[in-house]
Amino acid sequence: MNAIIISCGTELVSGQCVDTNSAWLSEQLTAHGVRVAEHITVGDEVADIADAVRRALERAELVIITGGLGPTGDDLTREGIAAAIGQPLEENPAAFAQIRAFFERWGRDMSASNRVQAMVPRGCTVIPNPRGTAPGIAYKDETRRLFALPGVPSEMRAMFDEGIRPAVQSSRGESCTLSARLLCYGISEAKLGEAIADLMARGRNPLVGTTASDAVLAVRVLARGDESEAARRLLDADCAEIRRRLGQLVFGQDDDTLQGAVARLLFAQGKTIATAESCTGGLLAKCLTDVAGSSAFFLRGYVAYSNAAKTQLLGVSPEVIAEQGAVSETVAKAMAVGCRLAAGSDFSLSITGIAGPGGGSPPEKPVGLVYIGLADKATCDVHRFLMGEHLTRGEIRDRTCKSALNLLRLRLLRGT
Amino acid sequence: MNAIIISCGTELVSGQCVDTNSAWLSEQLTAHGVRVAEHITVGDEVADIADAVRRALERAELVIITGGLGPTGDDLTREGIAAAIGQPLEENPAAFAQIRAFFERWGRDMSASNRVQAMVPRGCTVIPNPRGTAPGIAYKDETRRLFALPGVPSEMRAMFDEGIRPAVQSSRGESCTLSARLLCYGISEAKLGEAIADLMARGRNPLVGTTASDAVLAVRVLARGDESEAARRLLDADCAEIRRRLGQLVFGQDDDTLQGAVARLLFAQGKTIATAESCTGGLLAKCLTDVAGSSAFFLRGYVAYSNAAKTQLLGVSPEVIAEQGAVSETVAKAMAVGCRLAAGSDFSLSITGIAGPGGGSPPEKPVGLVYIGLADKATCDVHRFLMGEHLTRGEIRDRTCKSALNLLRLRLLRGT
Repeated sequence: MNAIIISCGTELVSGQCVDTNSAWLSEQLTAHGVRVAEHITVGDEVADIADAVRRALERAELVIITGGLGPTGDDLTREGIAAAIGQPLEENPAAFAQIRAFFERWGRDMSASNRVQAMVPRGCTVIPNPRGTAPGIAYKDETRRLFALPGVPSEMRAMFDEGIRPAVQSSRGESCTLSARLLCYGISEAKLGEAIADLMARGRNPLVGTTASDAVLAVRVLARGDESEAARRLLDADCAEIRRRLGQLVFGQDDDTLQGAVARLLFAQGKTIATAESCTGGLLAKCLTDVAGSSAFFLRGYVAYSNAAKTQLLGVSPEVIAEQGAVSETVAKAMAVGCRLAAGSDFSLSITGIAGPGGGSPPEKPVGLVYIGLADKATCDVHRFLMGEHLTRGEIRDRTCKSALNLLRLRLLRGT
Repeated sequence: MNAIIISCGTELVSGQCVDTNSAWLSEQLTAHGVRVAEHITVGDEVADIADAVRRALERAELVIITGGLGPTGDDLTREGIAAAIGQPLEENPAAFAQIRAFFERWGRDMSASNRVQAMVPRGCTVIPNPRGTAPGIAYKDETRRLFALPGVPSEMRAMFDEGIRPAVQSSRGESCTLSARLLCYGISEAKLGEAIADLMARGRNPLVGTTASDAVLAVRVLARGDESEAARRLLDADCAEIRRRLGQLVFGQDDDTLQGAVARLLFAQGKTIATAESCTGGLLAKCLTDVAGSSAFFLRGYVAYSNAAKTQLLGVSPEVIAEQGAVSETVAKAMAVGCRLAAGSDFSLSITGIAGPGGGSPPEKPVGLVYIGLADKATCDVHRFLMGEHLTRGEIRDRTCKSALNLLRLRLLRGT
């Protein structure tokens, strides 16, 4: 089955936003054995949308459209589909009931302009939107199917999962593609590539590649087979071999995160953690509490941004700060120890560093210098990192928290 | 002038990578007064590339292609262009010299496969690539121009700047396009649309549209004029009118953030802030310290995740927690007041709520229920929010922090 994905939005063709919906949809369709032949992006013009829909329906059995279903005057996907399939728009009672119910549920007033979102081309059906006001639109003839979803990624994804995925699964062809991403931290992409160079040969099945994103390296494995079981066997064999070679560098798979991996270990071992942060300003605590149920292991966090806060909250000696500076091994150690004692947790992580862009004093203390302390009941280790002056403030803070999470992950893997 | 941008790559149509090149090129072209009518993405197949190029040349005066110029067997943009314009490929001496010089400069051996990169359709010229091995390809007839660039963003951008931008600038019509985004918080997209409906009329200049992204609403204004001054006048007039109608709903412009707006006000008024968070787990502190130089206004943050932490760190009475629950107006107030006193700051923000997915007890305390306290030296106001059970844990935490930042922003705008 061939598919074409259309995204609508003047903010996309004018370059004010990057379209991520088409890539997400393509990934889903590819995994179901659908060949995505093309992405098309057009602006908020009825003629352009209608033209793109007409051309797509000529060349593909499955067309998915995102965007342009909102309540404002530049939301014209409804009109574009109606023009392409030659049907008038009419108010759909099911759509109207959904929109009204959405507002009633949240006790908010429904604007008159939201009523426009219930307009649907004649002969089309409605895809429920559990997360927003814009219902989706579905069209079907003898050989082709078309679905229109809102552009808001969270709404689009939920509606694809509930309204479209089952239809795609039941109608897909024989060949099957399965994919996996093994996620690594703490190695360069070049070294990673060398460790699995033979698996990355062109034309091999599975196809293996690497991608770096915010210091996390993903090994992508794409396995094809005549049926899903054959593809699954190939995929599993490659994943096992890659894991064998990379060992503890692999922290997870697919949509996993470092904090997710850490949380699993903390849950399993029944251990607790507290944090004391300076330059990351709460980001480490935020990461640990990203995980649902984190109250089982996360007790408290201190954002000791000022020197006074470091002293008052964590008992760091003002003399040490004056002598060695707030960004020093001794202060990192005192922060971690003070934090763990106050919180009564099994572990604590402390962070002090220079996130920039100002505040560096090279060569001793350049922007990107970070100390991370990891304390347990017996000891406290402090690790020194140079995150690199070419990184932005946001990147330095992100890499610092990932390094802290990875230190804790490796510590938990080592056991007591 | 109309333009169509084509990106080539199986990794794009299969969803393994997100195409950012098309958005970047669109932004450049839009700024030069070129109307980008469409983006097309196709896989690494000669027929698909040729078909896309043919269709684009039928409908646009300017076609820019990215990707598929590398040395490997799946780099087929050369062949696709040759098929579309009906010319054979032949080795281009200038291209071959460039590729050889590139390898000599870096003291590397040139692979046989790199020689393929010197193949160019007859009648085309070559665009130098100062940063890589793949030269670009340029084609021109009486009415149309086509450029093909490599997909590596840094190479693509440098080659656009040197090889294409001057051509676009000299051949564009008189017209010039300028854009701005006004960022709003605290209104629904429908209500926003109603407030500026007349400005959003189709075909009007400037073109005004709205986009919602993570609860921030952007009003996009795109102004065209015969020269940049005329476009600037139209843009400024619309921005002023929109700001007049929306008032304090507008917190910033273009790449601004709520924390950036709050930081400007805190800097200007010389005020300080401290935070006490439960369900957002440090995200609010992280947002405030995103801003470079935030140590001037951010004193400290507490992540009082457990009830014991709320009592020990902020002095919240255990009896109140037992009676009213940790997610209650009284606890939010006690957290804010305790935090401000301990930190000695001008203001404090507190957050307690249910971020889910578990932990809700409807109807009194559903997932998404959040209390935000804002204390100054005299008073403490607590605001109750229902973020909506349809949101994810991450979305509820994000919306909660944005609401807290917005409360502080409005408080600072009100003055003492």
